Amino acid sequence: MHRPNYPSGKDLLSADAVSRHDLEDVFARADRFWAEENAEDADAAPLIRRRPKVVANYFEQRSTRTRLGFQSAAVRLGHQAIDAHDTDRSRMGTTTGESLEDHIRTIEAYSDLIVVRTHVEELPYRISRLSYLPIINAGNGADEHPTQAFVDIYAIRVLRGPVSGLSIALSCDTRARFALSFVKLLRLTPPKRFTLCCLPNVSINPPMREAMQRLATLGTQISIVHDVRQTLDHDVLSIQMQDMSRFAHASLGSEAVDKERETEPFTITAQKVLDAKSDILILNPLPRFTELDVSCDTLPNAGYFQQVKLSTPIRMAILDRMLSGVPWTGQIETLPGL
Amino acid sequence: MHRPNYPSGKDLLSADAVSRHDLEDVFARADRFWAEENAEDADAAPLIRRRPKVVANYFEQRSTRTRLGFQSAAVRLGHQAIDAHDTDRSRMGTTTGESLEDHIRTIEAYSDLIVVRTHVEELPYRISRLSYLPIINAGNGADEHPTQAFVDIYAIRVLRGPVSGLSIALSCDTRARFALSFVKLLRLTPPKRFTLCCLPNVSINPPMREAMQRLATLGTQISIVHDVRQTLDHDVLSIQMQDMSRFAHASLGSEAVDKERETEPFTITAQKVLDAKSDILILNPLPRFTELDVSCDTLPNAGYFQQVKLSTPIRMAILDRMLSGVPWTGQIETLPGL
Amino acid sequence: MHRPNYPSGKDLLSADAVSRHDLEDVFARADRFWAEENAEDADAAPLIRRRPKVVANYFEQRSTRTRLGFQSAAVRLGHQAIDAHDTDRSRMGTTTGESLEDHIRTIEAYSDLIVVRTHVEELPYRISRLSYLPIINAGNGADEHPTQAFVDIYAIRVLRGPVSGLSIALSCDTRARFALSFVKLLRLTPPKRFTLCCLPNVSINPPMREAMQRLATLGTQISIVHDVRQTLDHDVLSIQMQDMSRFAHASLGSEAVDKERETEPFTITAQKVLDAKSDILILNPLPRFTELDVSCDTLPNAGYFQQVKLSTPIRMAILDRMLSGVPWTGQIETLPGL
Repeated sequence: MHRPNYPSGKDLLSADAVSRHDLEDVFARADRFWAEENAEDADAAPLIRRRPKVVANYFEQRSTRTRLGFQSAAVRLGHQAIDAHDTDRSRMGTTTGESLEDHIRTIEAYSDLIVVRTHVEELPYRISRLSYLPIINAGNGADEHPTQAFVDIYAIRVLRGPVSGLSIALSCDTRARFALSFVKLLRLTPPKRFTLCCLPNVSINPPMREAMQRLATLGTQISIVHDVRQTLDHDVLSIQMQDMSRFAHASLGSEAVDKERETEPFTITAQKVLDAKSDILILNPLPRFTELDVSCDTLPNAGYFQQVKLSTPIRMAILDRMLSGVPWTGQIETLPGL
Repeated sequence: MHRPNYPSGKDLLSADAVSRHDLEDVFARADRFWAEENAEDADAAPLIRRRPKVVANYFEQRSTRTRLGFQSAAVRLGHQAIDAHDTDRSRMGTTTGESLEDHIRTIEAYSDLIVVRTHVEELPYRISRLSYLPIINAGNGADEHPTQAFVDIYAIRVLRGPVSGLSIALSCDTRARFALSFVKLLRLTPPKRFTLCCLPNVSINPPMREAMQRLATLGTQISIVHDVRQTLDHDVLSIQMQDMSRFAHASLGSEAVDKERETEPFTITAQKVLDAKSDILILNPLPRFTELDVSCDTLPNAGYFQQVKLSTPIRMAILDRMLSGVPWTGQIETLPGL
Repeated sequence: MHRPNYPSGKDLLSADAVSRHDLEDVFARADRFWAEENAEDADAAPLIRRRPKVVANYFEQRSTRTRLGFQSAAVRLGHQAIDAHDTDRSRMGTTTGESLEDHIRTIEAYSDLIVVRTHVEELPYRISRLSYLPIINAGNGADEHPTQAFVDIYAIRVLRGPVSGLSIALSCDTRARFALSFVKLLRLTPPKRFTLCCLPNVSINPPMREAMQRLATLGTQISIVHDVRQTLDHDVLSIQMQDMSRFAHASLGSEAVDKERETEPFTITAQKVLDAKSDILILNPLPRFTELDVSCDTLPNAGYFQQVKLSTPIRMAILDRMLSGVPWTGQIETLPGL
């Protein structure tokens, strides 16, 4: 219940909040946690006990990886996560429910940090203003997902080395929230080349276009292609489905939606990788759909399962940093119109 | 699994179980936890590790504050709460389910203390007899909710000073369980004045009438009024809705119930407080309905959000005390007919 | 995230995986945990902090005892259990869900051990192959439930002494998974006599028949009877319903299924025990149906509630052992056809 005196910068709502210094600090903490957990004598080493803290998971959208990931990271730090949005067991959202304001003040009284996942873009920003607790945006509608961006860039660093020397391709719907956070975070460590692979007949989402222009001004060579084959000479390919709307429909439980296969130019297969003699590192935020064929799983190029493992030290690092009251020193972003 | 040798007094089922000495002990423990958590060097201080214990939450009714509150208090003590009444995942209550007796003996084998919330008044008493574990009644039908009463009186003490010197008003349905526990607990530290504000055309719930009579015999000046304006010269106002039946209906999920607004005489607004130039401390167990207008939130009089925060050290104190096997030394109450 | 270098034997899928040496090791650990927890100064003793680990509960079937039991055992060891099969809150199994392979790789990244309960017999075996984590089979269809068998034999040992000197009767459906694991585990410490009490008109489940034949070759005197009265001269009776199909139907939620009473010859009552002047120890895996009459509860013969309590040190012992990377040294069993 002791509240560190947060200056501005208490929250991680957008990749914009992160400075180069913050990025390095998170990676240094993650390196340390990763090394500790992998030490042969991990269980024998004296454990520095942290005062047990409470991480409140406020998840309005379904989630496996992010929910279990924050739960697991909290446990490994000696803390615990509680489920602060349980409509089955609380009155929240029922006829006897209470306002968001009252509910957040209640969660605030019982926890030390709030992790929010929602389809409502402005919700993490509203909660951020309502509470003096640090807030993590774990995905807000079609806006951002900055912790996933940390995971992705950390995976690149661990599996391929410093980002600044690399060529990085991103194949996905340009409205994907993990993608926007990823390109925004890349500005802190601009790669040599950045290539966006997207459908030819759709216009690029304006915030994504802006983030790419920012990269260009920092010296990164920017390209746009419409076939994953054209990315196979890069060092890294982060791939997800091209048409999020199908996914979004399915997320909403509309069983009638036909989960069509990804169109051929946007599907990565072992055959394509082998044909190109490519040593590209393949990443995927998971869950995957047809864009990432299971034939890739046994290629040395497959980095996506290691990427999941590296998400734990990253989430530990972010929680540890924020629970200690260390502020984010990048720019403070507000959603337009707020 | 080590079972302290409980004498009688193992359970907190009613405010009757609490003696003056017990009350002071709980408050002293809460003061200590509150000070520890708010210390500037809270995270640096060496942590006295408690052996991790298991608090079983047996909640048959929806709950946000009480459920998360006990979970959070357990975590901060180094313990954990488990959900012992999960009808989705257990067979309890299904055709292959087991009797209450067998179920409680199972929970007993896996935990160190049981917290019960239920609409069935006798359930905590039945569980108390079935188990040698300490039982906390966290709300049983229209009977009692003693831990909320501890929170309320602690909030008064912290925010206004010793209760014995104060005038305290309570505006609510006279059948409210938190209210009965509150008035019963007040007997241990009788205020100068106690005023009940209730609907003019309903008879006062007999147990509440009896608890008020007990206060009168202890020297408290008792009044009954029918408009919150008449309480504004008091030091403290604890307010909740007047007609619980509407709330109870809505709790049962009857969406057709119209959540009417509280009638005007039983609504507190900033305007009324300012008109009366009142410095009354306003408390509310939350969730609130229309009885407590949001215009009050920024008044210096608003104590209800601080009240939620003070609930954590109180729940920690009660859990810590009971898990250590310290008995309640007030009178042992049984429900009539049991 | 540190992965002990498991040789073969990382998993507890079947009682076959357990050697005599493993059995003694589990019991020795359980004895130590039980003694520690029951020590008068349990709370005062310095706590050896274990690095907090994550136990993933992957339960596709309803469960009270096994789920809460592993949760509680994890807490008491200083670890935590997370719910890794939450269809309400994850996308697993929905139209946007992912394959078992991807899901297990995700759980693997976030936890240190997976406990599986399922109606699909091959599932624990599939998960075992997919993951380098240790896997516990906590019940797979009509196959096995080895941790329950550990509990049952430990209860016999604690409440009646070394198994090798005892006569043990088992009254149940010969297809019951706890029963198959029980008889398989008995091979490590063969009793003097073993008697199966089952319906006269059904054929014994072949794996059960085989496990009994193995016992016979080890010198145990084997009998088959069709009335519990004929078991009352034994030292121990482990009893469950005779016709699992009724139970299985009810488990599937078929409310129309009539939960008939157990037929008289397979019901144990206080009267039968008293008539036989029997000092037989009665065990039951719980939940019970009509096979075990509540009139038995106050008999000195009733061991089933103590059996539940003894399950905690056993689950602690098994988790502790497997989380430390100690392999099972019995034979490696695979399901026929895998």
